[in-house]
Amino acid sequence: MKVSKLKSLLINIFKKKGLKYIDASISANAIINAELVGAYGHGLSRLKMYCDRISKKLINPKPRIKIKKISQSISHLDANNSIGFVAADIAVKTAIKNAKKTGIGMVAVKNSGHYGLSGYYAEQAVKKNLVTMIYTNAPPAVAPHGALKSLFGTNPICFGIPSGSKVPFILDTSISVINRGKIRVAANNNQKIPKEVALDKFGKPTTDAKKALEGVQLPIAGYRGSGLAWMVDILSGVLTGANHAGRVKDPFDDFSGPQNIGHLFITFKTNLFVNNFNNRIKDNIKTIKKLPRIRGVKEIMYPGQNKYKRFKMYSKKDIKISKIIKKDLKILLS
Amino acid sequence: MKVSKLKSLLINIFKKKGLKYIDASISANAIINAELVGAYGHGLSRLKMYCDRISKKLINPKPRIKIKKISQSISHLDANNSIGFVAADIAVKTAIKNAKKTGIGMVAVKNSGHYGLSGYYAEQAVKKNLVTMIYTNAPPAVAPHGALKSLFGTNPICFGIPSGSKVPFILDTSISVINRGKIRVAANNNQKIPKEVALDKFGKPTTDAKKALEGVQLPIAGYRGSGLAWMVDILSGVLTGANHAGRVKDPFDDFSGPQNIGHLFITFKTNLFVNNFNNRIKDNIKTIKKLPRIRGVKEIMYPGQNKYKRFKMYSKKDIKISKIIKKDLKILLS
Repeated sequence: MKVSKLKSLLINIFKKKGLKYIDASISANAIINAELVGAYGHGLSRLKMYCDRISKKLINPKPRIKIKKISQSISHLDANNSIGFVAADIAVKTAIKNAKKTGIGMVAVKNSGHYGLSGYYAEQAVKKNLVTMIYTNAPPAVAPHGALKSLFGTNPICFGIPSGSKVPFILDTSISVINRGKIRVAANNNQKIPKEVALDKFGKPTTDAKKALEGVQLPIAGYRGSGLAWMVDILSGVLTGANHAGRVKDPFDDFSGPQNIGHLFITFKTNLFVNNFNNRIKDNIKTIKKLPRIRGVKEIMYPGQNKYKRFKMYSKKDIKISKIIKKDLKILLS
Repeated sequence: MKVSKLKSLLINIFKKKGLKYIDASISANAIINAELVGAYGHGLSRLKMYCDRISKKLINPKPRIKIKKISQSISHLDANNSIGFVAADIAVKTAIKNAKKTGIGMVAVKNSGHYGLSGYYAEQAVKKNLVTMIYTNAPPAVAPHGALKSLFGTNPICFGIPSGSKVPFILDTSISVINRGKIRVAANNNQKIPKEVALDKFGKPTTDAKKALEGVQLPIAGYRGSGLAWMVDILSGVLTGANHAGRVKDPFDDFSGPQNIGHLFITFKTNLFVNNFNNRIKDNIKTIKKLPRIRGVKEIMYPGQNKYKRFKMYSKKDIKISKIIKKDLKILLS
């Protein structure tokens, strides 16, 4: 399907669900972007879920989002259970405005929902020549170090900065090694999962996908990753007024209330401390790219480069729509 | 040796090297703190190195540290090649002052040196009831993902926040899996090193410590850890005006110039967005601590708890001084 056609379909679906045109458009753009960078878990596969949650009044299609100004640099958003895309869009734009005015911007968001890829919002701020750090929590997916129950979300750490070229430096990294979906696929296909990504129900490391499904997934790098996940839960949940400590609801199977996810956006100017930032970042990237490489590695890539390549490539083609998604679209448009 | 006696010895040594009393005292306190939390790699083992670098005029014992005010929230320090402890002490105090005034503080430092543990400075800001994020770069220790040469330092990510109890939440995590010192010890003792921490000189994973010494150490979690290390190099090096891209000098064996390490301190108030922060963080920690545990795990610990326990325990005892350190002290005091 052509991108333009998909976009108008998605806008129609969201408008039918009660969203304003502008909010429907913001949501459609974010979903299409996820498809175009190959992050399918954040794309069309979630469309039906969003619509279901709107029908069940867990996502508010006409939110009254309040922006409270804490200072010239700092703002607090109450997203009023909007679809996450809309909250994040306002938040990053506010963070950009604050940073442009004072050098640094910080925006906290509560009562939000799943917003797709952090990197998508980081890109917006990076295009305005700002350094960007974004934190968001998510429903339970990995166990804290030493625990036998999942509590932390995939809690990504996102960092973006202009690279001095048209391809921005966007690190957007989950703190879980593997997601539950991949373990489920491995279990169905009787495949093994990698070592040190999951524990069985007794807390023992396992490579047996079925046993892993009864147990828990692990954060990256043991206690270090667990600490990073905890940090993200505090930054985006505890400090913002959102749910935290495992209480963010799973959007697919918990309809007992809104998700109340929290996000934190920090932005600042690249030239606060140096007047030749552009040369410095170019030199940094060039120096690292020139290092001797492991055999078989064609190029040392900086974070965001692969995603950008996929975006360029996929943007030229039609978007592939799976049978399941086609069915979803048909129902949602009928 | 009693802590008080060691402190006066260290102050004497640094004063003999030309430091002002207050700077000698700041440096002595930081070194003793590292010993008391069991971080020996940041303690007395570096004393001779600092003194050697002062003798060789690579650390400036009487720096003229300039603090440039960028805004009410933001400051830039030129540390004038001071010993890192002194630069970091001024930087964190400035970041605290800025945050107390405006809600958020950001301080960048250039022309600094190794300052020991980031967590030590985070603690100071956390005691003033501030959220704290600290980034610093370091001499080459791990290879970027895909590269066959070390370039990134151990580049720690540090995050501190009041925990609602007397034990602060201080995450201070290196992005390298293992340090070179530990590999050297393993090589000397003909022990194997863990999997996936190092590559041999051809870029192949190895558990042979001797082969690993000829190769490179890896960041945590593959490309994710490599991205985090790169982020830290940009935040603390590229943006601050300090060395970056592998140019921070190794303090032990590179006497070709000052290190010119960079640091970035971000601090902000805990109650910017919620008026019950204390209850929220206590609830967060309590909920996670109550999770079912893996057999053999007595308690789920939050970052900083173990270090605090060691500090309490070691503070009651005399500090053990190894033979090598005794020799160092004798020479430095003579």
